[in-house]
Amino acid sequence: MTSELFDPLYGIDAVADTVDDGAWLRAIVAVEAALSRALGDAGAAERADADAAAALAGALELDPAEIGRDSVSGGNPVIPVVNRLRAAATAAGLPSGSVHRGATSQDVMDTALVLLIRDASARVADRLWAGSDHAAGLARAHRDTPAAARTLGQQALPTTFGALASGWALGLAEAAADVAAAAAALPVQFGGAAGTLAALYPHGLDVADALADRLGLPRQVTVWHTRRRPLHLVAGALGSACGTVSKVATDVVLMASTEVGEVAEAFPGGSSAMPHKRNPTAAVTARADARRAPGLVATLLASSDHEFARAAGPWHAEWPTVTELLRVTGGAAARLAVSLDGLVVHTDALAHNLDITRGALLAERVTGALAPYTPDARRIVTDACLSGLRLDTVDAITTHVPADHVRELLDPAGYLGHAGDLVDRALARVAQLRRTTTTITKETQQA
Amino acid sequence: MTSELFDPLYGIDAVADTVDDGAWLRAIVAVEAALSRALGDAGAAERADADAAAALAGALELDPAEIGRDSVSGGNPVIPVVNRLRAAATAAGLPSGSVHRGATSQDVMDTALVLLIRDASARVADRLWAGSDHAAGLARAHRDTPAAARTLGQQALPTTFGALASGWALGLAEAAADVAAAAAALPVQFGGAAGTLAALYPHGLDVADALADRLGLPRQVTVWHTRRRPLHLVAGALGSACGTVSKVATDVVLMASTEVGEVAEAFPGGSSAMPHKRNPTAAVTARADARRAPGLVATLLASSDHEFARAAGPWHAEWPTVTELLRVTGGAAARLAVSLDGLVVHTDALAHNLDITRGALLAERVTGALAPYTPDARRIVTDACLSGLRLDTVDAITTHVPADHVRELLDPAGYLGHAGDLVDRALARVAQLRRTTTTITKETQQA
Amino acid sequence: MTSELFDPLYGIDAVADTVDDGAWLRAIVAVEAALSRALGDAGAAERADADAAAALAGALELDPAEIGRDSVSGGNPVIPVVNRLRAAATAAGLPSGSVHRGATSQDVMDTALVLLIRDASARVADRLWAGSDHAAGLARAHRDTPAAARTLGQQALPTTFGALASGWALGLAEAAADVAAAAAALPVQFGGAAGTLAALYPHGLDVADALADRLGLPRQVTVWHTRRRPLHLVAGALGSACGTVSKVATDVVLMASTEVGEVAEAFPGGSSAMPHKRNPTAAVTARADARRAPGLVATLLASSDHEFARAAGPWHAEWPTVTELLRVTGGAAARLAVSLDGLVVHTDALAHNLDITRGALLAERVTGALAPYTPDARRIVTDACLSGLRLDTVDAITTHVPADHVRELLDPAGYLGHAGDLVDRALARVAQLRRTTTTITKETQQA
Amino acid sequence: MTSELFDPLYGIDAVADTVDDGAWLRAIVAVEAALSRALGDAGAAERADADAAAALAGALELDPAEIGRDSVSGGNPVIPVVNRLRAAATAAGLPSGSVHRGATSQDVMDTALVLLIRDASARVADRLWAGSDHAAGLARAHRDTPAAARTLGQQALPTTFGALASGWALGLAEAAADVAAAAAALPVQFGGAAGTLAALYPHGLDVADALADRLGLPRQVTVWHTRRRPLHLVAGALGSACGTVSKVATDVVLMASTEVGEVAEAFPGGSSAMPHKRNPTAAVTARADARRAPGLVATLLASSDHEFARAAGPWHAEWPTVTELLRVTGGAAARLAVSLDGLVVHTDALAHNLDITRGALLAERVTGALAPYTPDARRIVTDACLSGLRLDTVDAITTHVPADHVRELLDPAGYLGHAGDLVDRALARVAQLRRTTTTITKETQQA
Repeated sequence: MTSELFDPLYGIDAVADTVDDGAWLRAIVAVEAALSRALGDAGAAERADADAAAALAGALELDPAEIGRDSVSGGNPVIPVVNRLRAAATAAGLPSGSVHRGATSQDVMDTALVLLIRDASARVADRLWAGSDHAAGLARAHRDTPAAARTLGQQALPTTFGALASGWALGLAEAAADVAAAAAALPVQFGGAAGTLAALYPHGLDVADALADRLGLPRQVTVWHTRRRPLHLVAGALGSACGTVSKVATDVVLMASTEVGEVAEAFPGGSSAMPHKRNPTAAVTARADARRAPGLVATLLASSDHEFARAAGPWHAEWPTVTELLRVTGGAAARLAVSLDGLVVHTDALAHNLDITRGALLAERVTGALAPYTPDARRIVTDACLSGLRLDTVDAITTHVPADHVRELLDPAGYLGHAGDLVDRALARVAQLRRTTTTITKETQQA
Repeated sequence: MTSELFDPLYGIDAVADTVDDGAWLRAIVAVEAALSRALGDAGAAERADADAAAALAGALELDPAEIGRDSVSGGNPVIPVVNRLRAAATAAGLPSGSVHRGATSQDVMDTALVLLIRDASARVADRLWAGSDHAAGLARAHRDTPAAARTLGQQALPTTFGALASGWALGLAEAAADVAAAAAALPVQFGGAAGTLAALYPHGLDVADALADRLGLPRQVTVWHTRRRPLHLVAGALGSACGTVSKVATDVVLMASTEVGEVAEAFPGGSSAMPHKRNPTAAVTARADARRAPGLVATLLASSDHEFARAAGPWHAEWPTVTELLRVTGGAAARLAVSLDGLVVHTDALAHNLDITRGALLAERVTGALAPYTPDARRIVTDACLSGLRLDTVDAITTHVPADHVRELLDPAGYLGHAGDLVDRALARVAQLRRTTTTITKETQQA
Repeated sequence: MTSELFDPLYGIDAVADTVDDGAWLRAIVAVEAALSRALGDAGAAERADADAAAALAGALELDPAEIGRDSVSGGNPVIPVVNRLRAAATAAGLPSGSVHRGATSQDVMDTALVLLIRDASARVADRLWAGSDHAAGLARAHRDTPAAARTLGQQALPTTFGALASGWALGLAEAAADVAAAAAALPVQFGGAAGTLAALYPHGLDVADALADRLGLPRQVTVWHTRRRPLHLVAGALGSACGTVSKVATDVVLMASTEVGEVAEAFPGGSSAMPHKRNPTAAVTARADARRAPGLVATLLASSDHEFARAAGPWHAEWPTVTELLRVTGGAAARLAVSLDGLVVHTDALAHNLDITRGALLAERVTGALAPYTPDARRIVTDACLSGLRLDTVDAITTHVPADHVRELLDPAGYLGHAGDLVDRALARVAQLRRTTTTITKETQQA
Repeated sequence: MTSELFDPLYGIDAVADTVDDGAWLRAIVAVEAALSRALGDAGAAERADADAAAALAGALELDPAEIGRDSVSGGNPVIPVVNRLRAAATAAGLPSGSVHRGATSQDVMDTALVLLIRDASARVADRLWAGSDHAAGLARAHRDTPAAARTLGQQALPTTFGALASGWALGLAEAAADVAAAAAALPVQFGGAAGTLAALYPHGLDVADALADRLGLPRQVTVWHTRRRPLHLVAGALGSACGTVSKVATDVVLMASTEVGEVAEAFPGGSSAMPHKRNPTAAVTARADARRAPGLVATLLASSDHEFARAAGPWHAEWPTVTELLRVTGGAAARLAVSLDGLVVHTDALAHNLDITRGALLAERVTGALAPYTPDARRIVTDACLSGLRLDTVDAITTHVPADHVRELLDPAGYLGHAGDLVDRALARVAQLRRTTTTITKETQQA
């Protein structure tokens, strides 16, 4: 999954080490160690044996390539890791029941994946929050800066740059909170070979809970070997986050275009051939990352048909899919945070663009002012717009509404409606999410 | 979207009328009527005018084909509906400000879509609950009926049929709760042409809240014209529900196969040519529905890049995508509920299949019993399994463990571990979800 | 699938009737009629009986809703249609072997789907060709009209509008040819209940070929009940076509934006509230259609796991997926053809936009001219670009290269490279595809 | 992308080195070297300078991590590679025009990707052919071995194991041929910064063709910077190949199940806990690989909207998507080839399973024999089937058709229809594809 060549440009280096080969092996070993201790906690193994086995697990030195080769026959890396751990335990004179007892490979793989998701999601959420913070700063700074609102690609009416940016801030904050919440809800997995915990009876349920406690994970309601909703929720949150990133990054790319020119990245990309280019490379690569998410979400959902007690394929399809989804979301969030960090807002361009329709942008408002005087108000104003004339120069209008009043009506700053209110509302909600999410994370870490 | 020919076989007729052309037109009119009343509520229109306009909206007779043709130029059906409503208001002598005032097409389309989702989701959740109930009945009836647990397609160890069915019940209950929760969280949409509510200033925020109240919808924190997380959450819940359905339906199809023969649908499909066929048609078509969901979820997520203040394409891609997703999820849930309703469990086949490995299924247990007597326990038992002999006939075993004790060890009923406990846990959680979800829905309807 | 309300705005009405309920029933009946005649052709039924049965099939009056209800139990509409046909045959005193003999439902459904795809694809290809023709016209008219080439959203260097439009023309022509070719390659399906044609032995292979001949379809190499490559190829061609449409439609939307303003649709969409709006509605809805294709392609590919001799779900998932894919591709192509038909090219805006970087667009060329005089050429020009000065006013440049020569170098018309050559190449290839594809279609229709 | 830990178990190690960081850098350098030589070929650079520059490119030592870090600002790895190459050229006293002249980053990235696809596809096709060969061997060996054909999960009628296996062989052969053909059709990419080849005018077209010739690639008709059909075709072929693999692997998993037991992998996976398990791990992991393809195909298609002359995101999304698609297809093909290599066919289980319906499988045939004697033939046989009696023991049948003739009718070997013919046809087509494809590849390599 890791690519030294490409991860940096996609921003994926922000999360890559949380889901790479080393992270997997560390997580697998962490689960095995916690299981040994949990056996002790639940009275299913001697405390001393359990602790000794856990220590052995912690000290295992594993080579990814070697474990990789030994994983082929069984179809997952837990089997060769456990073989090494068992050998170490035997060599140390520990009873076999102190290692991997009552567990099946899926217990370890699923719980390890949960640990990976927890770590990676924290990074992803952090980068989403960084983007949200930058956007909130822009929204505050430009709460009242008029800008053209565009619908279907056309200028529609005035709004403020702050209104746009506050939507970015809120979207990214919601995404951060969603990702954190989905990750925090992931429970431990522990069911044994057939999902009955038979090999540990009557200690099975206690060991499962102790394992959760040891790893700081929520306890399972029941075994979820083939009931994959927890992963669906994570995928949904990551997919939604990428969707939000794609909206913001697309706005940046479009506003940074030569003709619009309203924003520029603080550190745009250059071109070896064209000295004038100021490419919004960070937003561009954030878009590229984000576009990879929907297919990954679909892959995960389409592999929900985990038949019987352990799936013959759908389960194995999850590992690269979930980790790649974490990678692209982390990359998208990281690159967008770079794009928004110090984003230059060209207020002159904002003002200039508001004027290029020569007032047509506020035609609706002039129509309203003209309506009391003539039933043809709408027709008169529409004709004037189509002719390209400024509305304060059209006799059929100024006969009724004095030219200087028309000019006043054409001032975008006078027709911003609740833009400022909505900025305030959005930022208040961002702040609220920030407080709530922080609390959740703290509690979770204590658990 | 509707197909008289195909909707019944896919079970989609269970929800089709909640998202068809008529449902859309009714919802659009309902939003316009509520908006007129909300203008009155907020003091932005005379109460009498508002009520009269709302009544006109309610009385509009709209032909889908005609509105369809008139929607082409503007790109959505709200424009021709509003044109007709305005004409009726003018004819009735109502002021123009009593109709669609301050609204943009997207306000009406988004809020109408929310209404559709609410109605359709209630049906979807109802069918998911039906399936959950049937599965819970099976789980209770077969809480302790031994069955072969299969992993990677191979018999692994004993479990109970109830353990499997309780997982079905819990999965479907979680899905129902998720769908209901996502739908209930959808807020009203009201931002006006540029998302600033300028045309209604200073009444804009009040009208937005009054509109929500009139429609029984949550109020918006802020405008979400281009921040599509609410739809992401719905899509995520529906996609996850289909994933859960696919798991259960796949289990049914596999267990109904001629060779496994452990279940049969109460009303299997026949074949004109082959009188012996007992096709699990309901489960088969549930699988077909469910497989259509991941692509639709991906389509929705991939259309999150709503640029600027209203998207030039991504927005328009949502309508058929979300409604089709509701249709396939409703169909999947409905067909699965039929499949599970009266599902015949062949306990003789369950018992027979537990015996076809001639005891190898419990080899692990025999190994445990033999281990105290010889360090070669695992090898002895493995060799016996590979030779195909029943373990109670192998001298190397019965020398140490008496044959009748081996036979006892080979009884699946003695090695079910916590299967019963887990059934109880799952069903308790189902009951809890049932209580909570009902409450939410009730509260929501009061809002 | 059909929606009177939405199909027109998505342009789907251009193809809707080729894949709706009526089209399905007509196709099913056509296959049954052709099968009866094919039985006669192959000597597996009396000629007179075969013809009489075929005539009965042609005269069947079928109500979609009724057939729909009767399809539920068996899971496909062929069974109730055949029941009606058999009843009619019995009533007419025909032997049972003259109707549906040796066929299985999948033979009829697959072959009917092939017929639908043929008809719908012809429409889709026709609309793609229409778009290609319009684009080719634009390319010819503006073969040498300078325009700014934009990369990563930034103006890069000059090109011509014709170069852009010729790429549209070629892309759409290739898409049309691909769709036609994939559809034309679809063979008949005929394998009988188990794919062995046992019920017709030894006439099975002859009947299969006669059926193909009767329907004007390619003969099958072998039965493809569970080998779905033919459908993959169609889906791939349709998905690629939508991708091409999305590129062109996105270009139109961006170039029609208020700030770029280089093109306008001939009949842009208006807004009830904003008289100045000129929305490129056709391109917008073409984009919406096109965005729905990738998810549908994924759904089809993900349902390739047709197990054993007939799939329990994957097969049933194909019907709505393939027909919806035909619908959205037809809609995308139709709306794009409308968008390009009479597309207004604002040559003044093209010229204006070429000038907004004040010559920086040709900085590379000036650097080249300056290089012989100073090793600092690149730095000098880059600094000038960043300062926003026109390059012919910068002393450090004009000292070496006279200002009027610099002005000449800054003329975009002088730096168009092979743009004209590439237009010619692209249009020649379009013409070639046009000839080839027409031929193929004619041959196919004769077959 | 590469994972030492997971690539082996997914079989991805069969192709991983053709698309990893090193492969990318080698391909980029190969394109730059070929470009230098092509400049010489076309008279746009001195031959000696061109050759010297090409030699420098070939000798560059590049560190992926370093190039990765330097790629962030510009958004692709070509820029830092070219910087190093230019520095080397300058140090060697070569004119700047001998390096990367007239090219843009996308020319190099696209052509490098084409080189990667060529190499990887050859490996993918090779593994698909291996699987096809094994399947063909099974088809030949079991051309006439009766087996139960299953439809919708139920036994339907007899077929032969060879008929099933010949479908596998043909599907995999078609997939191999499709992948090879799509890869072979990929042309060189060469358009320069704006797609006009302006910097090389009037040598641009000649350089483009020379570059193609130097690399052994088809020449481009025209620049395809934003017309991505060539990649669509590759993705379609790979997606279809994975679909075919998923069908075959699913058949293997189902037939290897404990209850069906008709096949076993030669080297099944074991379980540390359950000595009797014989997991078809190769088929299981092939399924997992194959399931990842549809989402990747959708991602590529959804990123077809390459706006203007170079896309701001959609282009960058292609690199990991296409290479991952090659990886999963290669893995799927490789693991399936392992699964089919030496696949054990349990003919006793095939025979046993044909008998478990106690003759009902051939009810259709008995009905045919009984029909001349009684109009109730179908009812009599259906009742007998439902009662579970063997049909040769039912008086209502044997009254008319002697019991020993009924027994004869119930022999599956007597009702195999054209199964053998279809095996022969399929294998003949496989052989034909083998010949054609080899030829194509040879020609291509000569080009």
